[in-house]
Amino acid sequence: MTDLPIALDAMGGDHMPEAAVAGALEAAAKGCAVVLVGDETRLRAALAKHGGELPVVHAGDVIGMQEHATDVRRRPDASVVVATRLVKEGQAAACVSMGHSGATMAAALLLLGRLKGVERPAILANIPNAKGGHTALIDAGANADCRPVFLAQFALMGDAYARAIYGLAEPSVGLVSIGEEPEKGNELTREAHDLLAATPGIHFRGNVEGRDLLAGTTDVVVTDGFTGNVMLKLAEGEARVLFAMMRDALRSDLRSRLGGLLAKPALKRLAARLDPAEVGAEPLLGVAGHAFIGHGSSDARAVASAMRSARRLVDAELAERIAETIRASAVGAA
Amino acid sequence: MTDLPIALDAMGGDHMPEAAVAGALEAAAKGCAVVLVGDETRLRAALAKHGGELPVVHAGDVIGMQEHATDVRRRPDASVVVATRLVKEGQAAACVSMGHSGATMAAALLLLGRLKGVERPAILANIPNAKGGHTALIDAGANADCRPVFLAQFALMGDAYARAIYGLAEPSVGLVSIGEEPEKGNELTREAHDLLAATPGIHFRGNVEGRDLLAGTTDVVVTDGFTGNVMLKLAEGEARVLFAMMRDALRSDLRSRLGGLLAKPALKRLAARLDPAEVGAEPLLGVAGHAFIGHGSSDARAVASAMRSARRLVDAELAERIAETIRASAVGAA
Repeated sequence: MTDLPIALDAMGGDHMPEAAVAGALEAAAKGCAVVLVGDETRLRAALAKHGGELPVVHAGDVIGMQEHATDVRRRPDASVVVATRLVKEGQAAACVSMGHSGATMAAALLLLGRLKGVERPAILANIPNAKGGHTALIDAGANADCRPVFLAQFALMGDAYARAIYGLAEPSVGLVSIGEEPEKGNELTREAHDLLAATPGIHFRGNVEGRDLLAGTTDVVVTDGFTGNVMLKLAEGEARVLFAMMRDALRSDLRSRLGGLLAKPALKRLAARLDPAEVGAEPLLGVAGHAFIGHGSSDARAVASAMRSARRLVDAELAERIAETIRASAVGAA
Repeated sequence: MTDLPIALDAMGGDHMPEAAVAGALEAAAKGCAVVLVGDETRLRAALAKHGGELPVVHAGDVIGMQEHATDVRRRPDASVVVATRLVKEGQAAACVSMGHSGATMAAALLLLGRLKGVERPAILANIPNAKGGHTALIDAGANADCRPVFLAQFALMGDAYARAIYGLAEPSVGLVSIGEEPEKGNELTREAHDLLAATPGIHFRGNVEGRDLLAGTTDVVVTDGFTGNVMLKLAEGEARVLFAMMRDALRSDLRSRLGGLLAKPALKRLAARLDPAEVGAEPLLGVAGHAFIGHGSSDARAVASAMRSARRLVDAELAERIAETIRASAVGAA
């Protein structure tokens, strides 16, 4: 446990700094210490508007959504860089950004560095599943091209996450492929399958398919960051499209409209459970510290959720758990 | 146009031959000529049970779901092989199988062969989209490992399909990646992006992401068969899971239950539109003939839809249209 605050990049994202300030105040009211990072004048003004008080660390620059991730190297005053530096310097327990995801990753890699033995840090995404919990999808987008050993380490990091955060004793792990049989798949998955089967300390259940992500067939699902990012965005996009179609269906005639009105509270609860804002931000695992990446479109609710998610991982000392898991396995060690 | 019947592998699939016979009779009643391929005794018995009449071609063997696709080489009496041979010999306009998809592809490649100039035949899947139509996803699973030129040809085949079947004058094409910018993606997509941008005769809109599949951002979406198969199964699986969650939500209390009863017809119409049984079977494009692959779980309705889908492509002379499109472009020509 730590009393250090969570550093929030309050400038990166579509609705910033307003959503950052409102969300951070909501989180702070629930006992989560937050430090806002960004343009001090604007942040003080937004705080005053909300009648709230929070510590602010000034950052005079912001990396825009259309700019380059590599800009973190030459823009030390960018909000995401300043927020990450607070973690590096022991002044914050974690950094969270709803801005440029590539820049958030680059800042974490550059300033925090990799945990010893980790080949490639990866993004883990929590996908709501049919079993009422979440499936941990890793890598959700950090590494577009992967080698089999990366996937074996993703499995180890996902295992550590599912034990610490989902509270599972023996999380099951599946490898994304296009058929259950070990020989089904592409060059990467066929090699990765053998390596995963030989990786000690995980509970590998073999190949899983696209449908297993939401079914929750396994607790952890590993794949390369290209496939994982496509899956994440497809899963989120489909939920949005199906709910929009459902809303249209419930407006199609008088009878459906009445039915929709009656069913509204139940359907709203379901929509909330499937909303990415419920988790708020996803962790970059394998870096020496805690870094979180949220949607550019995050609103105040998503920011508050992100603070809560980040706090849980910090309290679980997840980075330390991952370091131990990677150390205990020999996978990837040169 | 042709009066030749569609050859239906009436043995391959979970609910065969009953679903095949019932679905084929339904299609035949609507004017679609069908020839059943499979165990003659069982098929005649099933026909008698339904009080219907259809031509039958005997096939004494079936390739089971757990067997090998390569079995098609040494099992000439397997129903899928016999059905494909009818196309090869000019006795059927198309073959359709709900059985082992690998075997269906292998039989088509072995017996029908590739269209001239086509590097790799590919499966095209029709994904219901938010615009009320379908997005053509290609390759949905035939080629797990791809080279950029394959993807350029998938775009050409998808373009020919969307013109012939969706009736579009200038179908737009997107490349699945993990960011809109050309340099975002993996090794394959970065090269494929440049090649697609230089491919004459298609309307390339650049990279699309997972969310664009159901949004219907472009009419055609090209990707390698690994990513495409994962996307297809994720999209279908998610629709199933979300509808099950919705059903549960509409049973959660008395008020929701009443609302659900009132909204039931509208929600059923929506579920039917999203049900893969609505299309029934998807085409393998690039072979010299018409071959279709359906779900192993297909019921009679899916079989009837598959016959209707196959008939549309045959009537549109799709294989000929694809051959022309590939010939007109120089892409992939050695």
